[in-house]
Amino acid sequence: MKANRIYNFNPGPAALPLAVLEEIQENFLDFSGSGMSVTEISHRSKHFDDVINDAVARTKRLLGLDDRFHVLFLQGGASMQFAMIPMNFLAGKSSADYVDTGTWSSKAVKEAEIQGKAINVVASSADRNYSYIPHNIKFNEDAVFVHITSNNTIKGTGWAELPDTKGVPIICDMSSDIMSKPMDTQKFGLFYAGAQKNVGPAGVCLVVIRQDMLDLVPDSVPTMLRYDTYAAKNSLYNTPPCFAIYTVDLVLKWLEETVGGLDKMAALNQKKAALLYEFMDAGDFYRATAEPDSRSLMNITFRLPDEGLEQQFVQLAQQQGLAGLKGHRSVGGCRASLYNAVALEAVESLIDFMKTFETDNG
Amino acid sequence: MKANRIYNFNPGPAALPLAVLEEIQENFLDFSGSGMSVTEISHRSKHFDDVINDAVARTKRLLGLDDRFHVLFLQGGASMQFAMIPMNFLAGKSSADYVDTGTWSSKAVKEAEIQGKAINVVASSADRNYSYIPHNIKFNEDAVFVHITSNNTIKGTGWAELPDTKGVPIICDMSSDIMSKPMDTQKFGLFYAGAQKNVGPAGVCLVVIRQDMLDLVPDSVPTMLRYDTYAAKNSLYNTPPCFAIYTVDLVLKWLEETVGGLDKMAALNQKKAALLYEFMDAGDFYRATAEPDSRSLMNITFRLPDEGLEQQFVQLAQQQGLAGLKGHRSVGGCRASLYNAVALEAVESLIDFMKTFETDNG
Repeated sequence: MKANRIYNFNPGPAALPLAVLEEIQENFLDFSGSGMSVTEISHRSKHFDDVINDAVARTKRLLGLDDRFHVLFLQGGASMQFAMIPMNFLAGKSSADYVDTGTWSSKAVKEAEIQGKAINVVASSADRNYSYIPHNIKFNEDAVFVHITSNNTIKGTGWAELPDTKGVPIICDMSSDIMSKPMDTQKFGLFYAGAQKNVGPAGVCLVVIRQDMLDLVPDSVPTMLRYDTYAAKNSLYNTPPCFAIYTVDLVLKWLEETVGGLDKMAALNQKKAALLYEFMDAGDFYRATAEPDSRSLMNITFRLPDEGLEQQFVQLAQQQGLAGLKGHRSVGGCRASLYNAVALEAVESLIDFMKTFETDNG
Repeated sequence: MKANRIYNFNPGPAALPLAVLEEIQENFLDFSGSGMSVTEISHRSKHFDDVINDAVARTKRLLGLDDRFHVLFLQGGASMQFAMIPMNFLAGKSSADYVDTGTWSSKAVKEAEIQGKAINVVASSADRNYSYIPHNIKFNEDAVFVHITSNNTIKGTGWAELPDTKGVPIICDMSSDIMSKPMDTQKFGLFYAGAQKNVGPAGVCLVVIRQDMLDLVPDSVPTMLRYDTYAAKNSLYNTPPCFAIYTVDLVLKWLEETVGGLDKMAALNQKKAALLYEFMDAGDFYRATAEPDSRSLMNITFRLPDEGLEQQFVQLAQQQGLAGLKGHRSVGGCRASLYNAVALEAVESLIDFMKTFETDNG
């Protein structure tokens, strides 16, 4: 670990690759020979065109997207997508199916309801405190889309595989697991991810949308809330969040050129998560909260024997350079977020710490 | 001028104070002893609370805002505000007055119309190509608000003083002149500014809203598009654009502690603009396009004798380290943006260049 840097298990904003941070730092006063900081260059310049075009091209290569898909950069985070999705795709009496797997899924449902849109919550795991992903869901054949959350940051669950929606396009919030593994993009009408977990800093939301979805947008939707605005202008209708997009581009470059693509990233992510789950499963001091077939590889939620110990655990870890292990305030407990930029050595250090803590307090 | 840095007259994103950029660079791998980059810290941490609270406090001190005003940080730029303003404040049959002084004013009007809101364009300077600010406007007494654009980045005009709206609250797009001078905040119901011109990088929009305006927001507005969401949560309902807010905070610190406040900033801005206008007015090679009583101090638009010379001027200036002098693609010509962070020495260098160019081509 580099001097002054700690192991960062934050749920988001989260760890970024050190090489990316160092590249930003080194070039911060003079971007690409422009004589300006990347925060000072024009979004209409060739310099910035190169950045955004590279970020789009890398996203397409990494995810294997065909030409029907647009890669867009929006603002407002995934939370703004919760509002834009029903606004753009549910005109008149058309309806959509939503699967409720936790806090963020529930918020997506709420934003459709606020707008008076017709939606059906076709499955929920609320009955067991969102500790699992529902199976054998019956979807409505006339739904315009099915909305799911691929990884539940707060509850520590994730979809091991996509549901069979019988051809209805899936819209998916991938904020906490995008680019963590390869995926079958053919099933999606749209997917989106607040960048601040796996692909960049806060302040930009990556949206991938299939061309035919753009035909659904009603005329009454304001310009900045329409997906076709961003698709028509390569996300440059107005000034985009340039620095955030630049950082995303560097993270994607790191994924392609240093990690070696999503297959390799997935293998490393599996290894990291397996190490931690297997360590916890082998004893009874630490208890993973997600049901085994629904465990997230990104956000590993767990409890200790009591809340007093959990507090001590989080505090002592922080003192020893392991940060961000507190569970979300709505659920308590502990959580280790093992996003792409969290190195294997960080997980090994965490497990060493957990062993010592158990010995001292078990 | 520091090695490798150029004079930046970009209209936005634009020049930032070098001291701010250097502070970001120096601390980029370890923010405030956290062991993380500012791009990696949690928005729920004390570290980030200190940043956003400092940015709010500095905004209130610099602008002399009383306790009725909330200082908010939103995403989507001023363009998103064009949509949010009618969405939040024009329910049912209530209507608003808009003054059309150029491209951005016109877009604000359009976004209200898309939503089917009742608005009146009570004055426009379209008749003389937006080269002036209308006077003696008759406002509607029952308007919920009057919308104006205090400085017109593209057309190079600005309001020398606020219109008398007979008590109707003014909503003002101040994207290109916020914090450039002190102002009478009592007349405003809301004002807003995309940060990327005078107060920070692209990716955050500063919004100041008076408490009573929050009572107007209808229940049907989605959470992320409601001003009361941001006011209730100190802009932390969801993950905000942390890096952009951090940079804004540093720019505000520079304004308070290095420049010495808005009176001193205004004096310097007046001096910079006067130098350039007086130089141009003294000859007939360069012609300022805004009418004299409506001239912007921030964006100085001008023409040369012909378009060929304008092209040469912009290119040669760029080669000599004077960047961003091309006029907006919709109007042509030239433009020097003299925002807060553009130093007097940059303006003097520009005038030296202009003299030489005139001698060589006049």
